[in-house]
Amino acid sequence: MDTPKNIKKNNPTSDGRNKKLYIIKIGGHVIDNSENLHYFLEDFSDLQGYKILVHGGGKMATELSHTLGIEPKMIDGRRITDIETLRVVTMVYAGLINKNIVAQLQAKKCNAIGLTGADANLIRANKRPVNEIDYGFVGDLDQTSVATHKLSALLEEGLIPVFSAITHDGKGQLLNTNADTIASTIATALAANYETHLVYCFEKKGVLRDVNNEESIITRIASSYFETLKSEGVIAGGMLPKLENAFKAIKNGVKEVYIGKSDELKQLKAQTFGTKLFE
Amino acid sequence: MDTPKNIKKNNPTSDGRNKKLYIIKIGGHVIDNSENLHYFLEDFSDLQGYKILVHGGGKMATELSHTLGIEPKMIDGRRITDIETLRVVTMVYAGLINKNIVAQLQAKKCNAIGLTGADANLIRANKRPVNEIDYGFVGDLDQTSVATHKLSALLEEGLIPVFSAITHDGKGQLLNTNADTIASTIATALAANYETHLVYCFEKKGVLRDVNNEESIITRIASSYFETLKSEGVIAGGMLPKLENAFKAIKNGVKEVYIGKSDELKQLKAQTFGTKLFE
Repeated sequence: MDTPKNIKKNNPTSDGRNKKLYIIKIGGHVIDNSENLHYFLEDFSDLQGYKILVHGGGKMATELSHTLGIEPKMIDGRRITDIETLRVVTMVYAGLINKNIVAQLQAKKCNAIGLTGADANLIRANKRPVNEIDYGFVGDLDQTSVATHKLSALLEEGLIPVFSAITHDGKGQLLNTNADTIASTIATALAANYETHLVYCFEKKGVLRDVNNEESIITRIASSYFETLKSEGVIAGGMLPKLENAFKAIKNGVKEVYIGKSDELKQLKAQTFGTKLFE
Repeated sequence: MDTPKNIKKNNPTSDGRNKKLYIIKIGGHVIDNSENLHYFLEDFSDLQGYKILVHGGGKMATELSHTLGIEPKMIDGRRITDIETLRVVTMVYAGLINKNIVAQLQAKKCNAIGLTGADANLIRANKRPVNEIDYGFVGDLDQTSVATHKLSALLEEGLIPVFSAITHDGKGQLLNTNADTIASTIATALAANYETHLVYCFEKKGVLRDVNNEESIITRIASSYFETLKSEGVIAGGMLPKLENAFKAIKNGVKEVYIGKSDELKQLKAQTFGTKLFE
């Protein structure tokens, strides 16, 4: 049972812009390994102040689909969310993974609340229009997607939102939505009220100068330097859209974006976590 | 995107005890039938003021267990929640059913937020002690289980909590918990701050004088009359513990308890819904 003194524990300053908020995204690399997840949640709990966790799916949804005899539908190499797959991801992401993360955080005295975009109408998406490919029940976000006042109210209540990558269209339909995009959309939407720091955890220690050398981390990339790295061909492949999106978020008000490995989250406080991207 | 004017829409009076709060519990009878559920959610949305929905499981968890080859474990006719069954109910109750109800309520402009007891540490349970039977991952509640301040804060924020019947022990373990008990525990815990009205929807129109005659509803039962009905043998079988628990809730501060059929929820406003139990 909580007591009144616990009610509003987060309120470092009255000036919204000075209130630091971390939005941290984790993917399958963390979720699929219970030991990785345990240590990550330990470090996440230790992080002071306002914070939001966004988690993707991982192998569990694929495994459950397989067990249930639901074949992954692919068109031109892209995965399609049909109604059966949506049922599975709603069960696994919003149910199994989300609630187990919340229970584990609660055990670490971190007052987590597990959410989808449908809850409190926090993230409303548009079902992706059918052009050449029908992606099925997939949601796209825009700058009006996030209910910033309601989300801020939960944060000011001392709660730690934990989002699974499910949103809704406001008309009764749940939608499978990219977790990276959810994280950057939240960070951008809350930038007017908080100093938002967006953190992507992935399988590498940061942006690497040489993809085959895990120690060749580029620790800081300003937007001007990013242009240089692009023109030199240092940043290419899958990392390119990731960084393009990160700098887009920075351009739209996000203070900093970090990209690094979940087991080094402790280093965030000293700003030595992975690669730091900034204006 | 919400606007500031939507933030605190519920606040009829400043005196807590005058604020009417409905806690409504639905079970498989409503959940398993999409038409029943649709009409119920329509009527639930139309109900004015503070409200909380608690839902049980229904057939879907049993069906998924069956598909996954998980045999129901029974000891002395009682169902056991082993770790595999807990995974299934977490997926189905907290994921699939809960989030679809929330999305449907959002479509009806009812600002629902889907929750388990782990979320915001709202309902903490004790794992049932192993005596003669090991029930597995089942939670029991007591009078300290509900985080009343946090739950009130969500209500005052204009949100409509929708609870699935999953709680946690505060040490990282989710627990399968009886939905009727969750509803009565919430109603009792919030009775100090709200005038709480507990509503059980089940398959009959109310408490029947003659179980074979659906029209023989006893419309009002005061606690003294309940003693008479018991001694006359009119109330017996499964209805007896249901009513014993209802009168226990009334004794502990709940204003009224209603027992009736979900498709008659509209009649709640006129106080002509099913059977009304009172002090």
